[in-house]
Amino acid sequence: MGFDMTTAFRSDLPAPSGAWAAPPRFSFVGGHNDGDSIPFTGLAEAAVTAIRRDGRRLATYNLGGSPLGHQPLRDFIAGSLSTRAGLNCDLDEILVVSGSLQALDLVNAAMLTPGDVVLIEEATYGGMLSRLEAAGVEPIGIALDDHGLRIDHLDSVLDDLAARSIKPRYLYTIPTVQNPTGTVLPRERRQQLLDLARRYELPIFEDDCYADLTWGCDRPPSIRSLDDASGQVIYCGSFSKTIGPALRVGYLVADPPVIRQLLALKTDAGTGAIEQLALAEYAPSHFDAHVDALMAALQAKCDAMIDALRTEFGSSVDVRAPEGGIYVWVTFPEGIDTTSLVPAAAAAGVEYNPGAAWSVDDDYGARRLRLCFGHLDLDTIRAGVAALAEVFRAETDLPIGTSQ
Amino acid sequence: MGFDMTTAFRSDLPAPSGAWAAPPRFSFVGGHNDGDSIPFTGLAEAAVTAIRRDGRRLATYNLGGSPLGHQPLRDFIAGSLSTRAGLNCDLDEILVVSGSLQALDLVNAAMLTPGDVVLIEEATYGGMLSRLEAAGVEPIGIALDDHGLRIDHLDSVLDDLAARSIKPRYLYTIPTVQNPTGTVLPRERRQQLLDLARRYELPIFEDDCYADLTWGCDRPPSIRSLDDASGQVIYCGSFSKTIGPALRVGYLVADPPVIRQLLALKTDAGTGAIEQLALAEYAPSHFDAHVDALMAALQAKCDAMIDALRTEFGSSVDVRAPEGGIYVWVTFPEGIDTTSLVPAAAAAGVEYNPGAAWSVDDDYGARRLRLCFGHLDLDTIRAGVAALAEVFRAETDLPIGTSQ
Repeated sequence: MGFDMTTAFRSDLPAPSGAWAAPPRFSFVGGHNDGDSIPFTGLAEAAVTAIRRDGRRLATYNLGGSPLGHQPLRDFIAGSLSTRAGLNCDLDEILVVSGSLQALDLVNAAMLTPGDVVLIEEATYGGMLSRLEAAGVEPIGIALDDHGLRIDHLDSVLDDLAARSIKPRYLYTIPTVQNPTGTVLPRERRQQLLDLARRYELPIFEDDCYADLTWGCDRPPSIRSLDDASGQVIYCGSFSKTIGPALRVGYLVADPPVIRQLLALKTDAGTGAIEQLALAEYAPSHFDAHVDALMAALQAKCDAMIDALRTEFGSSVDVRAPEGGIYVWVTFPEGIDTTSLVPAAAAAGVEYNPGAAWSVDDDYGARRLRLCFGHLDLDTIRAGVAALAEVFRAETDLPIGTSQ
Repeated sequence: MGFDMTTAFRSDLPAPSGAWAAPPRFSFVGGHNDGDSIPFTGLAEAAVTAIRRDGRRLATYNLGGSPLGHQPLRDFIAGSLSTRAGLNCDLDEILVVSGSLQALDLVNAAMLTPGDVVLIEEATYGGMLSRLEAAGVEPIGIALDDHGLRIDHLDSVLDDLAARSIKPRYLYTIPTVQNPTGTVLPRERRQQLLDLARRYELPIFEDDCYADLTWGCDRPPSIRSLDDASGQVIYCGSFSKTIGPALRVGYLVADPPVIRQLLALKTDAGTGAIEQLALAEYAPSHFDAHVDALMAALQAKCDAMIDALRTEFGSSVDVRAPEGGIYVWVTFPEGIDTTSLVPAAAAAGVEYNPGAAWSVDDDYGARRLRLCFGHLDLDTIRAGVAALAEVFRAETDLPIGTSQ
C-alpha cells in the first residue's frame, strides 16, 4: 500500500478529529446562537454596501491599512467599549483578531512556558482548559461563589504560591457572565482583584466575550477600565455571541507595547477583511438595537430552561439563573457523575458539556454540567430538559418524579 | 509608574511589531494584488445573495456543517482542482483554512519538532523561512534552475542525509510559479520527485498558492495528482492571489487521516463564514473568467517590469520572465549585497524583498532580490525600477547607464 503520512507526524498530537455528524435533537453544547436572532438582512446590506465602496482595498493585505485591523471597526469597538464596559481606549490599544480564540492563543504564546503555573476560575471555558493542557502549564482553580471569583481564596492562593516562590503567569478570568456559571463579578470585587494583582504583580487576562449579553444586573465597568493606566490587564471580546459565531472576529485591548508584541505573534496576514468590512458597516447604526432584541430572546429561553430544570428535576438540582449569556450551570447532589452519563444521554438524543470538561478539578466538575440554550427554541428546550431528566431517572438514584 | 506587562512575557519572542506606516511610493513587496483587478462588484452581489439565503446559519459555528469548511466552497475547490491541477479529490480530503498561512502552520505543528531537518528550495517564501526558524528546525536548501527544483541535487542531499541516518521531515516545494523564481516544475521532474520521495519515505508539502496564475506554459498536473493514492503529498492552495489577499481563505488537500489530524490542530472554531459564503457563491460562475482577465493584466505588468529592468540595468542584471504570478526574481553580479542597499532604497522611496530574506543561504541570496508587480500600475512599475536603478548607480560599482 501507499505511504502513511501520519507516521511522519509528531507523536504527541491530540487525537484526530472524528467524522463530522449532525448534532442530536437535544444538543445543549456548542455556544451557538439562534438563526432567528441573526441580523442577516442587515449584515447582507452592510456587506454589499461596504464591498461596493471599499472592495478595491481587498487587493491589499489588511485592506491596505494597519495590521491592527480595519480602522472603522476599531472605531466602533472603541466607542462600544466606552459605553458598555466603561473602557476608554485609543485605536493603537485595539487589535482585531480572528475570533477571541485567537486572542487566547496569542496571549498564551506570549506568556506561557511549559511548567508555568496559571490561575483560572475553578469552573471555566473548556477551550481554555484544553489550551492550557496543550501548553503544558499547571492551572490552579480559584473558588467561585454566586458573585464570581472569591477574592479571599485568590488571596490565600497567591500568598501560598509566594511562600513557595512561585509566580503565576496570569489570572485568566471571565468576570462578566462567567462561563459556565453565569455570574457577574461586582465592581467592588473587581477593585479588590486589581489591588491583589498589583500587590503580587499578577497579570490579569480579562475575557469579556459574553459581557454584551448581561441582562440580570447592571454591567460593571471592565476590570481593565478600573486599572487607571497601570497596565495590569489584557482584555478581550468578541462578536461571536452578539452577531454570530460563524463570523470569526474578536478583539484584544492592551497597552500599546503589549499589543505590538502580540501583533508580532499574529502571523496570519490579517483577520478576514470581508467580515471586518461588513461588521464595521453594520454595527454603528444597528448593534445596540440588535443586542437589545437578542437579549430579550435569550432571556425568554433562559427562563424556559430554568423553569424546565426545576420542574423536571425538582429538589435534585441546584440551578441559579445566569445574569446573561447562553448557558446555565447545573449542580447535582454528591455522587452524580455527569461524564459517565454522556453515553446514556447520547442514546436519548441529548448532549451537554459534562462539568469535568469545564473545571480544573474533576471532583468539583463531576456532579455539574453546562447546558446551552442560545440556539434552541422554547419547545426544544423544554423537551430536551425532560429527555435529560429521563436519563437521570433511569441511570441514577436521584428522586426525580415522572414528567407530566 | 504602572506595571509593565511585557516583563511577564517569554524572553524568546520575536521583536514587537513597529508602528504601521503607509508603504512608500515604489513598494515592490507584500504579495498584493491590484485594486483594478478585484472583482468586487461580483463579490458584493455574491455576498448579499449568500447572506440573504444562508445568513441564519451564521448562528452556528461552521455554519452548522462540517468543520472541514462550507460544503459548496469545497465543491468548487474540488472541481477547480480537477480542471486546473488534474487533482481529483473527495470532499473529505479538503480542509478550508484561514489563508494558506494557516495551512503552513497546521502542517508544521503536526510534523516539526525542534532539531528536525527539512528540505526546501534554496530560494523560497520568506514567511515559510521565518516559520521554520521559529520552529527551531534546520532547513536545507535544494538547488533551483530555470525549471525549478533540481532533482539531481535533491537526490544527492537525500543520499547524504540517509548516510548520516537523518530523515528529513518533509520537502516543502512551490512547484508551480515558484516563489520567488517564477519557474514551473515540468511534469517529468514531478514524477522523478515522487519516485525519490517514495524511495526515501519523504513527505512532500506542495504549496500551489500561485498556480492558478500560470500563463507562461501549460500548468502541469499537481504533484499530488501524480501520486496515485500513495499518500506522499500534502497540498495547499489559496484564493489570496486570485481573488484578493485581504480575504483569508485557503485550503489543504490530503488523505482523510491526515486531514482529520490537521483538523484536530485547527482550534480556531472555523474559518470566517461570510468569506466562505461569498466565495462559494461567486466562484462557480465567475472564477475562471476573472482569473483569465487577471492574468492578462498581470502579464502586461510583468512585461513592463522585465522591460524596465533590462532597460535600466542593462547587462548588470540577470532576470528571467516568470511563468506567472506577481513577482520577478532579480540576480545581480557577485559582490552586490541587496540587504545592505535597503536603507538607500528606502530613502529613494523604494522597497523590495532582499534575496537573503527569501533564501536559506545568505550568500546565495545576497546578490538577489524579489520585486512584486501585482499591485502597481505600469507607470509606477517603470518609475520604480528607474528609481531602483538610481540607487544601484549611486551605491554600487555596477555599470548602469543614466536613465532616459
